[in-house]
Amino acid sequence: MNRPLRWPAPWTLEVLDQTRLPFAVEWVALRSAAACRHAITSMQVRGAPLLGAVGAFGLAFAVREAAGSRDGVNASHPGASASDDALDAAVEELASARPTAINLRWAVTRVAEAVRAVPKSERAERAWGEAVRIADEDAAGNAAIGAHGAALLRAQLTPGRPLQLLTHCNAGWLATAGHGTALAPIYALHAAGVPVHVWVDETRPRNQGAALTAWELAAAEVPHTVIADNAGGLLLMRGAVDAVLVGADRVAANGDVANKVGTYLKALAARAHGVPFLVACPVSTLDPATPSGEAIAIEERDASEVVYVTGADDDGTVTRVRVVPAGSAVANPAFDLTPASLVTSLITERGIVPATAAGIRSLTEGMA
Amino acid sequence: MNRPLRWPAPWTLEVLDQTRLPFAVEWVALRSAAACRHAITSMQVRGAPLLGAVGAFGLAFAVREAAGSRDGVNASHPGASASDDALDAAVEELASARPTAINLRWAVTRVAEAVRAVPKSERAERAWGEAVRIADEDAAGNAAIGAHGAALLRAQLTPGRPLQLLTHCNAGWLATAGHGTALAPIYALHAAGVPVHVWVDETRPRNQGAALTAWELAAAEVPHTVIADNAGGLLLMRGAVDAVLVGADRVAANGDVANKVGTYLKALAARAHGVPFLVACPVSTLDPATPSGEAIAIEERDASEVVYVTGADDDGTVTRVRVVPAGSAVANPAFDLTPASLVTSLITERGIVPATAAGIRSLTEGMA
Repeated sequence: MNRPLRWPAPWTLEVLDQTRLPFAVEWVALRSAAACRHAITSMQVRGAPLLGAVGAFGLAFAVREAAGSRDGVNASHPGASASDDALDAAVEELASARPTAINLRWAVTRVAEAVRAVPKSERAERAWGEAVRIADEDAAGNAAIGAHGAALLRAQLTPGRPLQLLTHCNAGWLATAGHGTALAPIYALHAAGVPVHVWVDETRPRNQGAALTAWELAAAEVPHTVIADNAGGLLLMRGAVDAVLVGADRVAANGDVANKVGTYLKALAARAHGVPFLVACPVSTLDPATPSGEAIAIEERDASEVVYVTGADDDGTVTRVRVVPAGSAVANPAFDLTPASLVTSLITERGIVPATAAGIRSLTEGMA
Repeated sequence: MNRPLRWPAPWTLEVLDQTRLPFAVEWVALRSAAACRHAITSMQVRGAPLLGAVGAFGLAFAVREAAGSRDGVNASHPGASASDDALDAAVEELASARPTAINLRWAVTRVAEAVRAVPKSERAERAWGEAVRIADEDAAGNAAIGAHGAALLRAQLTPGRPLQLLTHCNAGWLATAGHGTALAPIYALHAAGVPVHVWVDETRPRNQGAALTAWELAAAEVPHTVIADNAGGLLLMRGAVDAVLVGADRVAANGDVANKVGTYLKALAARAHGVPFLVACPVSTLDPATPSGEAIAIEERDASEVVYVTGADDDGTVTRVRVVPAGSAVANPAFDLTPASLVTSLITERGIVPATAAGIRSLTEGMA
């Protein structure tokens, strides 16, 4: 299984630096909560499920760091409640690193809850174990998403031509702890010998489609074609797309989907041409506590992501060029909202449901 | 008046090299039909009305070149009909340089028709004069588009905030022989003291929004903000856009609009949020001979436009970086089609009409 993170030994976490792909494959060692948070904010790791996994390991580091410095942190507030204050602060520090993807807060909170009732001397080990479980459960869940999604997509096959899919951003194994979400069904179909072709949205401003999805698909030898984000409407109009398949950063209780900015435009075009618009995500991406998309915070990222484009120069050196003149203002919302009414189905590890309150409740009821 | 072309003396045409903007302002002298064609195919000049003007001058050069080489060309076919064969070939050579924008063929044909009945000794001078007329009429027409469009847009003003417009690609003075089409009403409003703010789509793959529209607006001190093409859906959902205003490369007889790829996605989003979607173009962009969008040829441009992004490096040198890995296929349709049903109004120099067959007929009836 390809994974963008690995833990060769306890307290050693390594992640693939996704700001360097596809031109350089470099693993970065993360040895502290601060290093994990930096990897998240700098987008060395990205993708809602992977943010969750790295956040979980980050909280494990924080728990160990708190244990090591307990005398200092708790000098004036001895006892369990003060330690839990530190735990809560560590949760907040990591969960706030990126606001839109719910998986980050979910995973960090899960690790915190796993250690809260545990004797302090055992907390660090327990936290690390919980982070490993979160990562491994994510990968296993994504394999199930792949199976469910592949079954659904087979129904879209037109005899005599490959299944034509369009995806936005990267929801492949790089975005998760293994297998991917939106790409998992594609990998499953490809492995089963079903002919598939993927239209890959470049995904400005950070080009996760051109840089990451294309790289993943090329490595797996899945036929694909990179397009400018602008081209999808024409392709849908021409009948060149059988389904649009994306991941999600958060799904509200009513089925509204927050995902990489530009997703909404593709959902509108899919609807205009009667093409299924499918969202693949683990149940941990569903957020029953958020009533609708309006309540989801949309992260505004730095203008430099729009102003500069990073790529490889003629020597293969990763560098950047300025594409916006210095005298112009820039806005850079990182996500947008796709109304539930435009989403054909949610594909999760627990099965496929409509993007409705009832569909989401059927998956999340009884969860913590 | 800012213009992207000038003719300081007869048989001297100079154009602003738009592949170098916004980082270098360089004028290129064009002294032959082949040089004009090269400027068109290399996109040193672009924008439907400007393609028409440069094509017109190109045909004037071709007429002069044919006169100079008449003995050679017509050695075996003396007389007017052989010369008209050469004229027709020159028309075809220039008009085919870019297939989607109708203005190019319209303008080149107009120059040819202006000289067809003229004695050969006078043809070159007549052709040059006709090209000048085409350029000057375009600029005057665009000023009228600006006046009509400004009146229409004033109706969209919300008290207490600037008029919020979104535009795609560049339909400013750089795209025309003066004033611009979609930007002409914006310049008119700005000059009249109406507060305006423009959301500028970057417009991948060639970034005409970030490189050209932003540069134009900054020079004119019109408040504006560059966004990734992906961001427009969210802005429309948030109510941050009062009208979407674009140019056109061709408008079919039924009102379907061919324009820069990505336009259609913004038209869908404008409709979803009840925001006017306005297309500004001269009557020469209307093509009564093409029944609907389906009949418009969509130019597929070179993959390198998607694979590489051109910008300025840290030293200000214009360079390019690769953003798509070498193992991935690329598709690059340069235009898309917006169905007439999504177009609120067409703004032309002869007035504002609905994007319907009747609306278009009211402007084009009686035209050659």
